Amino acid sequence: MKAITIEINGKQKLAALSNNEVIIDLQEAQSKRGGLYRVPETMIEAASEGTLFWDEITKIVNWSLENQVKDCLLSTNSANVTLKAPIPRPTKNIICAGKNYADHAAEMGSTADIPQHPIIFTKSPTTVIGPDEAINPHLNVTKELDYEGEIAVIVGKQGTGIKKEDVQDHIFGYTLLNDVTARDLQTQHKQFFLGKSLDTFCPMGPSVVSADALKEKDISLSTYVNGELRQKTTTEDMIFSIASLMEVISRGMTLEPGDIIATGTPAGVGKGFNPPRYLEPGDEILIQAQGLGKLRNEVLKHN
Amino acid sequence: MKAITIEINGKQKLAALSNNEVIIDLQEAQSKRGGLYRVPETMIEAASEGTLFWDEITKIVNWSLENQVKDCLLSTNSANVTLKAPIPRPTKNIICAGKNYADHAAEMGSTADIPQHPIIFTKSPTTVIGPDEAINPHLNVTKELDYEGEIAVIVGKQGTGIKKEDVQDHIFGYTLLNDVTARDLQTQHKQFFLGKSLDTFCPMGPSVVSADALKEKDISLSTYVNGELRQKTTTEDMIFSIASLMEVISRGMTLEPGDIIATGTPAGVGKGFNPPRYLEPGDEILIQAQGLGKLRNEVLKHN
Repeated sequence: MKAITIEINGKQKLAALSNNEVIIDLQEAQSKRGGLYRVPETMIEAASEGTLFWDEITKIVNWSLENQVKDCLLSTNSANVTLKAPIPRPTKNIICAGKNYADHAAEMGSTADIPQHPIIFTKSPTTVIGPDEAINPHLNVTKELDYEGEIAVIVGKQGTGIKKEDVQDHIFGYTLLNDVTARDLQTQHKQFFLGKSLDTFCPMGPSVVSADALKEKDISLSTYVNGELRQKTTTEDMIFSIASLMEVISRGMTLEPGDIIATGTPAGVGKGFNPPRYLEPGDEILIQAQGLGKLRNEVLKHN
Repeated sequence: MKAITIEINGKQKLAALSNNEVIIDLQEAQSKRGGLYRVPETMIEAASEGTLFWDEITKIVNWSLENQVKDCLLSTNSANVTLKAPIPRPTKNIICAGKNYADHAAEMGSTADIPQHPIIFTKSPTTVIGPDEAINPHLNVTKELDYEGEIAVIVGKQGTGIKKEDVQDHIFGYTLLNDVTARDLQTQHKQFFLGKSLDTFCPMGPSVVSADALKEKDISLSTYVNGELRQKTTTEDMIFSIASLMEVISRGMTLEPGDIIATGTPAGVGKGFNPPRYLEPGDEILIQAQGLGKLRNEVLKHN
């Protein structure tokens, strides 16, 4: 099952996305269908419900599609419907793993940069944009705009000291994320935060895919710039698995519903080329992963 | 003027603190006084009002004290009143400057570690605790628990690309903050975030002091552990001034009302001693600064 956040007539709502790309307005559908379950207002609230949410909306979606209920089914092409980031405004910074694929660690420096312990940094919640929204190149702040295609985990049940073997109980779902980076700022300021946190530097989406819908151990992930394949990997190549990352991150820090953990990017970022191939105004970045759909954004033609 | 967040009968409220430590319940006072101004529910909302808030609450406080209005004046010793962190739950990570005093940069490594550009990292909002609340030593996660006394800026008016000379327009006020750190995690994970983000690692308070009440260029700041002076500096010794920090941080990242910027710690942290003097269960840390009061916390005697 896939959950999305849409904006319809200026109001944000939680919706579902069917396999053939029909949007189901969950609140509308549930009010027509009747029943005790109250559809959450936001993705963060949904994440706190965990499997209850997925179970209930599966019933709502099936009922809506079977009965082709009027006013509940929307087209992704409707003029008055905009797809937003699944969590348009996180309630804390996005948590990110750095250098979590060996080939990327090596291209950023050398094999000596392959970490022994996860490298964890954050991006400001003010960075988040949705599918097809424009990335601001911040031409007066950076000369080295770069992309990083990643798979992100959306945390469900709250937890501290989560053990590897229990991690699945705390995962609400998965999405795609572009960890856009100003390489010059990342280097200059030593700590990554500022170079990762310029406004619009976190495209995210298109949907949150439920944990149970993504059971494969090995998910392929690719990034294209202007149609050219730049990054290609599978999640099996992560240095620290999602389970390891969540165990380490939660050892002393409570993870909460709606927390976003970006799991790292493979080789093929702009800085990895010689000479580097940084993003330019007008460039299109497309990230896709098996079962997670496609996340497409363009760099604004000017600031 | 000083604003605080209190908990009274289980409910969080915004209040003011008079020079002789009387708490003024602002909503209660304003409802008795009458007038168009509506007292904000939270410090973040107050920060978004900026000088309007300080002007209006000054009138409310003066009226309450002059008339000794019943039920509006509370004692800091009342059993049913607890002082909370001024912003008990920030809506994004706390933004922190690292190595912003030359003597501290040197004690953490060498004078080669004195930064050319501000080092900016973050702490999770789940770290925040209030005055007198206990710091969890996380004995099973870290063996190197350390303190860092700091002055923090609370952002008022939203801004991007804020120029040094305009920074004052964007400062709501100041508070004290203990940037508690697990040194082993800070080193192991390269990026500072995890070692800075264990639950309870950000004592903050006691109050937010309005920007206009802290006009001195040079504020003295001291940290005591179990009564022994460990850190002592003045803000004139910062490598990057508050104005510089805010200019650099906001170049491409929007600062929002209620954002917290910790401005760095001077020499004298536990790691700076030879051998290091890390915190132990039961230790008391007291941070004080001219005009900002005292922030006192103890390390829990056990996890």
